[in-house]
Amino acid sequence: MEHAEEAVETPARFETHSDRYVHWRLEIEPPLARLVMDVQEERPFRPGYPLKTNSYDLGVDLELADAIQRLRFEHPEVRAVVITSGKDRIFCSGANIYMLGSSSHSFKVNFCKFTNETRLAIEDASAHSGLKFVAAVNGACAGGGYELALACDEIILVDDASSAVSLPEVSLLAVLPGTGGLTRVVDKRKVRRDLADVFSSLGEGVKGKRAVQWRLVDETVPLSRFKARVAERAKALADASPARSGPGVELRPLEGRYEDGGVEHRYVSLRVDAAARVAHLTVKGPGEGEPATADAMRERGSELWALRAFRELDDVLLDLRFNRPDVGVVVLGTRGDSERVLAADRALWENRSDWFANEVLHHMKRVLKRLDLTARSFIAVIDAGSCFAGSLMELALAADRSYMLASSDGPKVQLSVLNDGPLPMSNGLSRLATRFPAGWPAGESMDEAYDAEAALEEGLVTFAPDDIDWDDEVRLAIEERASLSPDALTGMEANIRFAGPETLETKIFGRLSAWQNWIFQRPNAVGERGALTLYGKPERARFNWKRT
Amino acid sequence: MEHAEEAVETPARFETHSDRYVHWRLEIEPPLARLVMDVQEERPFRPGYPLKTNSYDLGVDLELADAIQRLRFEHPEVRAVVITSGKDRIFCSGANIYMLGSSSHSFKVNFCKFTNETRLAIEDASAHSGLKFVAAVNGACAGGGYELALACDEIILVDDASSAVSLPEVSLLAVLPGTGGLTRVVDKRKVRRDLADVFSSLGEGVKGKRAVQWRLVDETVPLSRFKARVAERAKALADASPARSGPGVELRPLEGRYEDGGVEHRYVSLRVDAAARVAHLTVKGPGEGEPATADAMRERGSELWALRAFRELDDVLLDLRFNRPDVGVVVLGTRGDSERVLAADRALWENRSDWFANEVLHHMKRVLKRLDLTARSFIAVIDAGSCFAGSLMELALAADRSYMLASSDGPKVQLSVLNDGPLPMSNGLSRLATRFPAGWPAGESMDEAYDAEAALEEGLVTFAPDDIDWDDEVRLAIEERASLSPDALTGMEANIRFAGPETLETKIFGRLSAWQNWIFQRPNAVGERGALTLYGKPERARFNWKRT
Repeated sequence: MEHAEEAVETPARFETHSDRYVHWRLEIEPPLARLVMDVQEERPFRPGYPLKTNSYDLGVDLELADAIQRLRFEHPEVRAVVITSGKDRIFCSGANIYMLGSSSHSFKVNFCKFTNETRLAIEDASAHSGLKFVAAVNGACAGGGYELALACDEIILVDDASSAVSLPEVSLLAVLPGTGGLTRVVDKRKVRRDLADVFSSLGEGVKGKRAVQWRLVDETVPLSRFKARVAERAKALADASPARSGPGVELRPLEGRYEDGGVEHRYVSLRVDAAARVAHLTVKGPGEGEPATADAMRERGSELWALRAFRELDDVLLDLRFNRPDVGVVVLGTRGDSERVLAADRALWENRSDWFANEVLHHMKRVLKRLDLTARSFIAVIDAGSCFAGSLMELALAADRSYMLASSDGPKVQLSVLNDGPLPMSNGLSRLATRFPAGWPAGESMDEAYDAEAALEEGLVTFAPDDIDWDDEVRLAIEERASLSPDALTGMEANIRFAGPETLETKIFGRLSAWQNWIFQRPNAVGERGALTLYGKPERARFNWKRT
Repeated sequence: MEHAEEAVETPARFETHSDRYVHWRLEIEPPLARLVMDVQEERPFRPGYPLKTNSYDLGVDLELADAIQRLRFEHPEVRAVVITSGKDRIFCSGANIYMLGSSSHSFKVNFCKFTNETRLAIEDASAHSGLKFVAAVNGACAGGGYELALACDEIILVDDASSAVSLPEVSLLAVLPGTGGLTRVVDKRKVRRDLADVFSSLGEGVKGKRAVQWRLVDETVPLSRFKARVAERAKALADASPARSGPGVELRPLEGRYEDGGVEHRYVSLRVDAAARVAHLTVKGPGEGEPATADAMRERGSELWALRAFRELDDVLLDLRFNRPDVGVVVLGTRGDSERVLAADRALWENRSDWFANEVLHHMKRVLKRLDLTARSFIAVIDAGSCFAGSLMELALAADRSYMLASSDGPKVQLSVLNDGPLPMSNGLSRLATRFPAGWPAGESMDEAYDAEAALEEGLVTFAPDDIDWDDEVRLAIEERASLSPDALTGMEANIRFAGPETLETKIFGRLSAWQNWIFQRPNAVGERGALTLYGKPERARFNWKRT
């Protein structure tokens, strides 16, 4: 394990495009689309494991995430998506076991987090873009394959002797179905807990009528009628979903510059101080001439500040997670004109009934959730020249703490309507509501610009040192944070960031993932004789039988 | 770690009595009581670590749990409890670090689970027995010490130069405050998340006015006025709490017989098949002549079936957790007359406005929660001669799955009003509501006795094999379960058992404890150079800086 932990991995890149998908086919026939999984065995994300039996790795999932995103932005005419397999007799066999078995603990955890975010993006598209999903399960559907189906609105399973849905992780690999499976089975599909228990400990899975009776799938249909029935259900879902007027907006490449020392995008930059294990993540506000009408925003398309800046931020967060494991503290900064940020927010909010503005808002929301779920300490530094206002103020509210310079012509912070609900965290609350569980005393004064003293008074920032103390106080806070155990900080932040209610999402990232991370450390799974390590080998796993 | 994991530990015993407390003084002055923590350094639960600076181990916490329980049953005249320290300038320094550092992973996890249950029992007493708690923090209050205070209704901190509340776990030990601290700070006391972050990463803690401003304590009072102010607040809380008529009911010793092969109590027995790693836990229903009126029930006191049987069950569950780590599967059985169980339930329910019957019901509830939270697979076997009815039917509903014998004069199962709300799980729902998230179709027929076929039809049991298949099917289910990875099962059960809403309790046992368990496996905490391992030694911890 320690060996794998130390292995050098090639930096991952996260952008892709439907023109160059390797493992998926995206077929558009408005109002329907088909997403066909046809994994190319010999093209894994990194060398060393063939992607047999429609199993997936990060490369496969990056394409899926991209396809969901492009469907929302580029194909407003599509209202239902059929997810199915291009292979014979196999829908999907889940995450590739050899890839998992040979990955570092940190990669495993981040891989699962990303695939979870992708499944949640499917549900987000269904809830907020009227894009409905049918899993057309045309063959064996195991583990992560079934978890992908669980993220869809409906699951239709072919009724034959071999097609079953299953979660064989516990029995075969001594790990959990970690991509939301256990949570969705009981909390989304409302499978009775004892049946969920039987199902999740039964390697071979459940097929046919029993799968319907147990609520594991919605329907089971013989192969002869399968295609027609899937089309019928997809059509019905599309018909029930509101039409959106085209044309779509192409998501153009970001073309960032990636170096050892950081990443440079147009609006977002990451500079890494490797020796200090600190990264500076800075977001620039909009320039002049951002559009304010729905038509002009669509015209600007993916170059719109609110879309481009948050796509860049998303890319940088993934870069941090996968490529810069040694960075413990991320200093969040902004540069620009607060008024322009507020104007951009206002334009989105006023045009939110337009599908494009709506998509941009939900995209912002997802990127900010990705930040909340990134296991690094975030410290917002609100200094001269910054523009922590509205949507960019979310960065300060998402941070574990914030420092704001108190000086006579120092920075100001300001809220906008976007801080008050449209960009909720995974717990379903705005960052403002999470921060002030007893209510924000100054709730009515959303239009005010607060200097450091006022912001401190209102609880919008953590500390407000003056010019004299500023440098030392900020430097010490960063140094102290970077000196603490990375594991303890990950656990601490995972608990403190998500005060208040729990949702399906927070249950997946809190309860389910925390248990899975624990198991990913246990010798029974990942030791020399662990089940995950020995998968596919002739030896049988040997367990330490102590229950914890 | 593996070394400690394998170390043989003396079997723990869990019963104690206020007459023989070593570490606490229980002083009764109705309507107040004082629980004074005065830990005897040289009397740890097992040899090898002195209990310096009012630090605690399992022995200290067993006495605390016993005291809370006895206050509820034996002292109905008490309506407020002051928890304070008998030491000078130190309230409590938390769980003993040397004890934790030298314990096996499994012991650490079970120790934290028990101490969490004790803190929740304090809150349960406040919510359901009108027994209010004031933490009189008369000195330094660190880690588990502050977590104990957090479980109280009010926290009063002495205002002097040295008395601070703190959670130094992250900074000193590279682990979490795992006894609910992180959860209660943000979810119970509603400390703002950025302040909680500062507080929880700051070894030295927060004192005086700032502790009040941050909501970490309710009041801070100079030493000269401390005693008077504590007495005043305790009196005010007692006055606001309804009086309960005495006399109390003594909790008499259980006097079970403990052997390698199991435990024998009057109503509850545990028989261990070590080779199979299976235990048979059997609960006998009431005998003849159980009382039905409030007076008669008080007269019967701790010999009342409903109280004695569930106290015995509690003892056996703790025995399983601490003394029998190799047991993976627990077969739950019952023996007796269903009508008598239902009569006992009815007597409690009809007299629930009597404080004693109310206490018995809440005790049942807590024991059943302990079962839900026990990391073993439970399989209920409903065979001839069993009495799975009402409160004992909860055992079948709590089990991960159940098998019921289908035969012409086979067993029946039946519900009572106790299944429909009075015995909720940690998630706040009854086991029936958790089982049927979409509602139980037969909700109206609580009076019916169901044979195997009908129980299967109604979803009350998982499987109903007939005479011919019974032996093989039950045997195979047990064997298969016992063959799976204990860790994967623990994680799976922790997810499937708690469908539905999350509460403070489930957040503590799900999110918080799962992260803590993960950290308890990480070399940064427990490795040779981990911070927990090296605590108190001259060497400094060395961390692997990779974030996960």
